[in-house]
Amino acid sequence: MTLSRIKALGLAAALPFAMIATPALAGNNGATVAPYAPITEADVLAAQQAWGNALVAISTEYEKKGHAAAKKLAEQVLDSAYGYQMGPVLFKPTLTVAPQTFRTDREGALAYFVGGNTRFKDDSGFALKGWRSFEIKNAGIVLTGNSATSMGNVTLVDAKGNRTVVDKTWGYVRGPDGKLRIVLHHSSLPYKPN
Amino acid sequence: MTLSRIKALGLAAALPFAMIATPALAGNNGATVAPYAPITEADVLAAQQAWGNALVAISTEYEKKGHAAAKKLAEQVLDSAYGYQMGPVLFKPTLTVAPQTFRTDREGALAYFVGGNTRFKDDSGFALKGWRSFEIKNAGIVLTGNSATSMGNVTLVDAKGNRTVVDKTWGYVRGPDGKLRIVLHHSSLPYKPN
Amino acid sequence: MTLSRIKALGLAAALPFAMIATPALAGNNGATVAPYAPITEADVLAAQQAWGNALVAISTEYEKKGHAAAKKLAEQVLDSAYGYQMGPVLFKPTLTVAPQTFRTDREGALAYFVGGNTRFKDDSGFALKGWRSFEIKNAGIVLTGNSATSMGNVTLVDAKGNRTVVDKTWGYVRGPDGKLRIVLHHSSLPYKPN
Amino acid sequence: MTLSRIKALGLAAALPFAMIATPALAGNNGATVAPYAPITEADVLAAQQAWGNALVAISTEYEKKGHAAAKKLAEQVLDSAYGYQMGPVLFKPTLTVAPQTFRTDREGALAYFVGGNTRFKDDSGFALKGWRSFEIKNAGIVLTGNSATSMGNVTLVDAKGNRTVVDKTWGYVRGPDGKLRIVLHHSSLPYKPN
Repeated sequence: MTLSRIKALGLAAALPFAMIATPALAGNNGATVAPYAPITEADVLAAQQAWGNALVAISTEYEKKGHAAAKKLAEQVLDSAYGYQMGPVLFKPTLTVAPQTFRTDREGALAYFVGGNTRFKDDSGFALKGWRSFEIKNAGIVLTGNSATSMGNVTLVDAKGNRTVVDKTWGYVRGPDGKLRIVLHHSSLPYKPN
Repeated sequence: MTLSRIKALGLAAALPFAMIATPALAGNNGATVAPYAPITEADVLAAQQAWGNALVAISTEYEKKGHAAAKKLAEQVLDSAYGYQMGPVLFKPTLTVAPQTFRTDREGALAYFVGGNTRFKDDSGFALKGWRSFEIKNAGIVLTGNSATSMGNVTLVDAKGNRTVVDKTWGYVRGPDGKLRIVLHHSSLPYKPN
Repeated sequence: MTLSRIKALGLAAALPFAMIATPALAGNNGATVAPYAPITEADVLAAQQAWGNALVAISTEYEKKGHAAAKKLAEQVLDSAYGYQMGPVLFKPTLTVAPQTFRTDREGALAYFVGGNTRFKDDSGFALKGWRSFEIKNAGIVLTGNSATSMGNVTLVDAKGNRTVVDKTWGYVRGPDGKLRIVLHHSSLPYKPN
Repeated sequence: MTLSRIKALGLAAALPFAMIATPALAGNNGATVAPYAPITEADVLAAQQAWGNALVAISTEYEKKGHAAAKKLAEQVLDSAYGYQMGPVLFKPTLTVAPQTFRTDREGALAYFVGGNTRFKDDSGFALKGWRSFEIKNAGIVLTGNSATSMGNVTLVDAKGNRTVVDKTWGYVRGPDGKLRIVLHHSSLPYKPN
């Protein structure tokens, strides 16, 4: 039940039923919930779709408007989809190598997605590779209250129709606005036996 | 999805969809979930009903079978409904007085419900007062993931039809078997202005 | 470890040790942590002291500057110490009566603390009663991860030296800024046997 | 504070200070805590060491006592270190391939560690590869209350001194006995650019 709904009921009278507090944050439009609200399966599935859509959007922005625009969009994505504004994020991208394998701060994550950072010379910009669509197959989702994790395959399709499949783990918490943030991201190419 | 269901699917093949891990504990009948599963509104409402039913059951047992039987039942209730096996419980019963107001251990809680403990001389046995039925009106429930709290009025009706209304707060966590346990219980008579 | 500290380490190099993510929120002064950081005993004790100090401050403001100033301060306290901006709060104040016992929205809580609201005619303003000091004795604190509850006695002392003791339960979550917010508050006068 | 300590204090008297409920489970030796107790950095580090020690122990058992003994030990490890008794575990081992990449049930995990299961023909037994020692370097640990995740490198050393480095993510919850259980495990060989 949203806060506005509760106000509408008029609390001067005894409430005839239970209000459940996974409430809308005051001042928002009722679509988001408090940071303490338990994370649901629907929350996780929506966050996964948002991630895929954002990757395709950055690729498209790059092709239409160039690198600066793509970088700007990537920064917005990082701040809305990942938890770097709240602290370190456990991020092991698909294509990074030692000693820069783990990108626990925002700068390292941004470099991975759009390149162009001399501190991360190996990064060519994963989000700039012409991605057009994606598919997510979860092997499982574990809900643990104020956090959740998912594991499965993510298939990315580029402009030429090439398909890249990765083994993907995501971990989520709610951010200050009640929306999910990725605080764990482990991506790896499938193991190939010799 | 229960564990047995997952096994039935056969994990040798790639799973075509997400499993959500609020799973049945192995060896149980599928009705209970893991200790880490987020607590739902339905969990809280069921635990509230179980509390009321248990209080009536202890009263009935006392009248039919005497104090020893009622005490035995009360012990079972304490171990299944409260979290004393896991640690201290924040329990402020309706009728206790200083310096024994708070009953954070099992012995103090048992004394409150069935009396007969020389260390708690003021306790006459709250659960022995002829309770026949109950009604719970929640003012609100707050779900916080692996815990939850509720607040509202509980009305108890005794054999003579007398009604006692209390202001009641309960806090819950999941126990080792996945079932809710009360770890917070604050009960008080309504304030009466002079 | 704060975010600024992590940045200072330079993540281009492999990290030689573990960072623990109960991090400072970016843009803050390093004293607050992320909404998902587990609540500690120290957090709870600090929030309890803040509540007592705020009550005394509102009383003092009222005497020095009048009702409007006290009301303004009370609103600030409600927004910083309670979770009304995030959703309903389970609040059973010491002196409220049916059908306005429970103050689950901000308006009802404000009326209780400073009065002056025609919708809550019985409210004379609990925070305006000349409080000078307070003492908190916890019977117990239960930490449950992203929430916590405490129970015990709070003693309030007014300008004449009169002491009021209440049985008090508080429940906390972290707010969007990482600071604790009260989402549960049950206060009652000690039971007096006839 | 452990439960026994609390009992020793004698709750008939008013408690002079706060008890914090990350309590020892009754009947245990005081070393374990309740399932709802927030997970600490120390908990995570201990669980990581336990995992490494168990892997070496299975290898050693295999060499000294053969496959049946190693399998028996591996089953004990799975039940004490992983959460398969509580529900599905998100497990992507280092060397698995589609369509058996993800081992969300106990049988699949056991097959990975000790082989010998005709349903998992590609599994030769990862824990039987002569492991002698291990080293864990965390890039970060995120504590989220009743769960936690870690990410970093794990280096395994075999009897010949060969070193295998993997990128490793673990996610933990508390089990019914208060001890950590792995409910997320993503392991991958470092990416090798062409």
